[in-house]
Amino acid sequence: MSTGVWLIGARGSVAVTSVIGALAVRAGLAAPTGCVLESPELHSDALPGVGDLVFGGHDVSSIPLEKKAAALAEAGVVPARLAGAVRDGLLDIERDVRPLPARATQAEVAHDIGADLDHFRRRHGLERVVVINVSSTEPAPPAHPAHDDLAGLRAALRGPEPVLPPSSLAAYAALSVGCPYVDFTPSTGARLPALDALAREMGLPYGGHDGKTGETLVKSVLAPMFAQRNLKVRTWSGTNLLGGGDGANLAEPAANAAKATSKQRVLAETLGYVPQGDTRIEFVEDLDDFKTAWDLVTFEGFLGTRMRMEFTWHGCDSALAAPLILDLARLTAAAHRAGRTGPLTELAFFFKDPIGQVPHALADQWRLLRDAVAAFGAGGAQR
Amino acid sequence: MSTGVWLIGARGSVAVTSVIGALAVRAGLAAPTGCVLESPELHSDALPGVGDLVFGGHDVSSIPLEKKAAALAEAGVVPARLAGAVRDGLLDIERDVRPLPARATQAEVAHDIGADLDHFRRRHGLERVVVINVSSTEPAPPAHPAHDDLAGLRAALRGPEPVLPPSSLAAYAALSVGCPYVDFTPSTGARLPALDALAREMGLPYGGHDGKTGETLVKSVLAPMFAQRNLKVRTWSGTNLLGGGDGANLAEPAANAAKATSKQRVLAETLGYVPQGDTRIEFVEDLDDFKTAWDLVTFEGFLGTRMRMEFTWHGCDSALAAPLILDLARLTAAAHRAGRTGPLTELAFFFKDPIGQVPHALADQWRLLRDAVAAFGAGGAQR
Amino acid sequence: MSTGVWLIGARGSVAVTSVIGALAVRAGLAAPTGCVLESPELHSDALPGVGDLVFGGHDVSSIPLEKKAAALAEAGVVPARLAGAVRDGLLDIERDVRPLPARATQAEVAHDIGADLDHFRRRHGLERVVVINVSSTEPAPPAHPAHDDLAGLRAALRGPEPVLPPSSLAAYAALSVGCPYVDFTPSTGARLPALDALAREMGLPYGGHDGKTGETLVKSVLAPMFAQRNLKVRTWSGTNLLGGGDGANLAEPAANAAKATSKQRVLAETLGYVPQGDTRIEFVEDLDDFKTAWDLVTFEGFLGTRMRMEFTWHGCDSALAAPLILDLARLTAAAHRAGRTGPLTELAFFFKDPIGQVPHALADQWRLLRDAVAAFGAGGAQR
Amino acid sequence: MSTGVWLIGARGSVAVTSVIGALAVRAGLAAPTGCVLESPELHSDALPGVGDLVFGGHDVSSIPLEKKAAALAEAGVVPARLAGAVRDGLLDIERDVRPLPARATQAEVAHDIGADLDHFRRRHGLERVVVINVSSTEPAPPAHPAHDDLAGLRAALRGPEPVLPPSSLAAYAALSVGCPYVDFTPSTGARLPALDALAREMGLPYGGHDGKTGETLVKSVLAPMFAQRNLKVRTWSGTNLLGGGDGANLAEPAANAAKATSKQRVLAETLGYVPQGDTRIEFVEDLDDFKTAWDLVTFEGFLGTRMRMEFTWHGCDSALAAPLILDLARLTAAAHRAGRTGPLTELAFFFKDPIGQVPHALADQWRLLRDAVAAFGAGGAQR
Repeated sequence: MSTGVWLIGARGSVAVTSVIGALAVRAGLAAPTGCVLESPELHSDALPGVGDLVFGGHDVSSIPLEKKAAALAEAGVVPARLAGAVRDGLLDIERDVRPLPARATQAEVAHDIGADLDHFRRRHGLERVVVINVSSTEPAPPAHPAHDDLAGLRAALRGPEPVLPPSSLAAYAALSVGCPYVDFTPSTGARLPALDALAREMGLPYGGHDGKTGETLVKSVLAPMFAQRNLKVRTWSGTNLLGGGDGANLAEPAANAAKATSKQRVLAETLGYVPQGDTRIEFVEDLDDFKTAWDLVTFEGFLGTRMRMEFTWHGCDSALAAPLILDLARLTAAAHRAGRTGPLTELAFFFKDPIGQVPHALADQWRLLRDAVAAFGAGGAQR
Repeated sequence: MSTGVWLIGARGSVAVTSVIGALAVRAGLAAPTGCVLESPELHSDALPGVGDLVFGGHDVSSIPLEKKAAALAEAGVVPARLAGAVRDGLLDIERDVRPLPARATQAEVAHDIGADLDHFRRRHGLERVVVINVSSTEPAPPAHPAHDDLAGLRAALRGPEPVLPPSSLAAYAALSVGCPYVDFTPSTGARLPALDALAREMGLPYGGHDGKTGETLVKSVLAPMFAQRNLKVRTWSGTNLLGGGDGANLAEPAANAAKATSKQRVLAETLGYVPQGDTRIEFVEDLDDFKTAWDLVTFEGFLGTRMRMEFTWHGCDSALAAPLILDLARLTAAAHRAGRTGPLTELAFFFKDPIGQVPHALADQWRLLRDAVAAFGAGGAQR
Repeated sequence: MSTGVWLIGARGSVAVTSVIGALAVRAGLAAPTGCVLESPELHSDALPGVGDLVFGGHDVSSIPLEKKAAALAEAGVVPARLAGAVRDGLLDIERDVRPLPARATQAEVAHDIGADLDHFRRRHGLERVVVINVSSTEPAPPAHPAHDDLAGLRAALRGPEPVLPPSSLAAYAALSVGCPYVDFTPSTGARLPALDALAREMGLPYGGHDGKTGETLVKSVLAPMFAQRNLKVRTWSGTNLLGGGDGANLAEPAANAAKATSKQRVLAETLGYVPQGDTRIEFVEDLDDFKTAWDLVTFEGFLGTRMRMEFTWHGCDSALAAPLILDLARLTAAAHRAGRTGPLTELAFFFKDPIGQVPHALADQWRLLRDAVAAFGAGGAQR
Repeated sequence: MSTGVWLIGARGSVAVTSVIGALAVRAGLAAPTGCVLESPELHSDALPGVGDLVFGGHDVSSIPLEKKAAALAEAGVVPARLAGAVRDGLLDIERDVRPLPARATQAEVAHDIGADLDHFRRRHGLERVVVINVSSTEPAPPAHPAHDDLAGLRAALRGPEPVLPPSSLAAYAALSVGCPYVDFTPSTGARLPALDALAREMGLPYGGHDGKTGETLVKSVLAPMFAQRNLKVRTWSGTNLLGGGDGANLAEPAANAAKATSKQRVLAETLGYVPQGDTRIEFVEDLDDFKTAWDLVTFEGFLGTRMRMEFTWHGCDSALAAPLILDLARLTAAAHRAGRTGPLTELAFFFKDPIGQVPHALADQWRLLRDAVAAFGAGGAQR
């Protein structure tokens, strides 16, 4: 039986690149480069395959998938040849991409989201549906007492005032109808005590936050290197230049702050102290979906000698994120099948700001992931 | 009881920086930054301390240690303040640094080296002496039948023609009088079947090769990152600019070739394939002991999208190598005490071209090292 | 006869490095590297020599010059050897460094500044005194009607409210007692219509603004290169990391904005359009007086092909600025002697944000400077 | 009347990009970005227009232009849209691209080349034909007495042994039938005393060598910057990674040496001394027509302070070269029309290794060019 993948932000660059890629891999037109689960060490027949994924989603935009695919081809994110070859598949999926419900209360919106998920599940006869947020980054919401208490939250959602940011409302709706939820953005998502309680009540897993696709990925291997060599990092200063929709959104100071905090966490966690320097994000429209990050690291060695390292990363964000979306859908489905509930700390490998007390060095996260693949696969086989 | 450290190349930059550092750390004048064994995860009271190390060595040069220390201070490798503060300690050690013996046959040279080691051990009442090669890189020697057979080697060394390159002759001499041998250079050292047989016959451990201090260190974390993310590395091209004595020596094509080969091994081992691109070494006298490396990595992601990364490393070679010399002396002494014989594969963390079938990802080498520290410490405690 | 140099901010890094350098060059202990007037094409015996300069100044700080010199040596800005060798010279100059006068009205402060300048001139029998501002960057002042009218300004200064920012008050005081004024900072200085009128009334030249010492210097040759090759620059994004006193001050948003505007002007002026991208300044205390700038330039070539260039500049701000202070003192003195009045547009070569309608390509500024050296020298010879 | 452009190497990347571009600009499909003569300061109606150029040429390859255009589009050098739009134009030009003549003696080959040029001129009723060499770089030829004497050369060419390298034979043939010759490669071309004599005898201009498209272009503005600031450059070390046909050819040591020498000349000429460091060229097939160059510059400032700069240039060689080919064709035609003979030193702006005693700073070369445009235009207007 098949696995559904419901994308919040289904018409965005990351979502559409994921969908094009899944269709192309299924048709044998492209290799699953960048799909972590397809590396030789992790491949497992017990996980749902890329070809078993069925896509749908919500979006506030109404630009057709096919048109977005053409724009991605024009920008060099996907080959024009592939965008054309999967045209029919995109038209099929178009029918399962719905506008985000608009209603008077958040309880009603959540109900409608749930109804869309149910309809999607039934229409395709899906075993389960994983909901993944790939929409734009939200500012951190103001604190609210209902965030900490499930019963209070249910009551508050029926009131006229919004209680949850959109990502958390999607998480609430998904979990309420039995769907695991993963947040690939720095937004709040399921990271509220009330939603954790809901997941446990429903016996569901959830995961996040903020896909690790570029500068932070590199940090997560370099920072442990300095730590293991007992070299003292004095400065770590990063500049991220990015265009595209995410760039424009992150130019908003509040969203920018959420992201920048997420990006520096790895340093404190792996070094054990916070070096000087910040992470800056600047919107440069011309760069489009290609992001350029430059980091300067100054460090101190034996007898205080000062040394330095710089790196430049020039990556295509959607091309780096999309295969991870496919990985996360497959892993979360397998975790659900295996009966795993609560925060999926095993997926720290994928995130800048992983949920829970987890290792932040990439190599440690990798071993955690390898063990999880084995466990989820075995769990699935038993069923 | 104390541990002797006999340095081949005792008047060179790496050796003298190690000695200054050990004296400064012992006197409480400097922190052991860069000493891997002093990181919180590895610190063990069962290992000999930095303060327990007693230094001596051979060198073809006769420049006094104190003068070399002043030159290192002038070049910014060690603080002038420290070089001055440990002056008395350097004068003491001066008495244990001897010219490399010159005799008619290599058997006689080896005998004299052994006599120097014995004299050093007795003079200071040392429990054991670890011999570490930090002299200039040799070209790879021509093959010789005696390299493969210990009895044949012993006979051949008595002939008029040289059979072993200097690093291997030092290894032969050290092992023959019961001293473990470690090679921090890309030279041949103990890496000959006849010398492996000698080590096993004597119940001694040996280690190497080629200390991992800069560009290759970074490669050993970045290459696994690309592999674990299932991204396809297409090009990895490196340029190393270095001055100092090592730089001048590596400008010799034969030594350069030995080094460059050693530097690319990590890519094949961790990626499973060899990307395009070479590693170049250029001598730029003006850079002195500070080395600048620049690497370009181009890679392919999802659906073939091309991306790239660059890094520049600006490090002081002697300041990066010296604390590792102290670590290797302490670990090898502990391995010897614990009864460990043959190649020390556990020390792969320290080397560009580690002996034996070992992991090449730094994180895996780190776990191997952590386990070895625990094992060697326990071994020592039993005695 | 000798030329006086009165430094506003006389105890800061730039001022003290200038003074140490002038003393060392005069004593034959150092070459005048970085002094533009000592390049073979510009050297002229008709200009006052470095050895003819006599130093004094104001500062709000009271740290002795000798102590500041020791700190600069510790930070690697000047060699410890030189800082020691010129100790007696620093003690002499100490007597001519005075606290900034504090009085009830700005008119009184200006009077006291003028009295200090007069006393300095008489004490050393100086032909003329050039006042140069090397103090911290100020925020741009609020507009005031008195800025546009010299009579109104004179009246307003006698009132209880401050009318001028400190840099402009210093310019007013200097010009009022017959001293040319140069501003090496982005602060307002003499750039007000009322002060321009004062300079013309007094027959004095003035110059500025914002010494061009690093990233902007590089921009002033790269931007013309793109223009002359008819390549279209799409993005020019710069990050400046700096420590030291200037860095801390520029972390203030208002000062930062003044500086960043000054740094981008060269692009509009030489390209004829403004590419995307900003210039960011970040304070990283650990970098001290060494500044690291990273710039990304993306450009479009024939048939729309996209290309890119990056550069990193790692410079010591005080070491780059100090020789230019000596050049500016000598040139401004020569301009004064030659009867030149009003804004010194000939000095655009030295500034990020030069006064007047001037070329912004470095090569054009160089030719302007070369002609000015010839003209000022000839003017001097007539006297 | 029209101007012919005869390209030696007419099926190579640079030639075909030039031709596509000229056709696209003429059809109004593309802007003349990168064409120096179209910058506002240089535009002149007295020069032949891009639309007046008629193309033909020789090549040893027989790959159709259309097929090469498709390959260039695939590699991202030209937009696929444009390659398609100019298809008919390419098919027309195909008829004027001929195989390089093969005959028993070089005199006979030269005769046939001349016949091809004559036929091309007559067929299109061209006012003049400029021959431009854009074929692969040759090794420097062995010295031969006939290189220095025109009469001796004519005699030697009739012998059975080759006397001239291909680029010089092409120059000989072109000049013999009244065509100006320009060499865009580092090959010998017209740079022989006998060929200079021939050009003067025929009243023809000639130009070269080695188009300045990337790293050397940047050097030609940065090196003067260091010189004008009187900063002492200590090291200038460059690495060039390039794929494509030129890269494969430059992997040959002899061709590589010719190129590397040409690339360092600008430093000696603009600095007045030769800093440490080399220029390396490495072939990395994967980079295709996009070249990455990295340069490290270390320099010394006031009081000996050490500083450094790095830059990375990521350019598309053919896209940078092609518009310059159009410029050179138009300028050389105008020079010929204006009666200019001998080496075209005015074109130094375009070349790494310009002929004659010329300035090497880009800004000086630019002024020389601007004056030449004015002079050639005026010369043409008189006729």
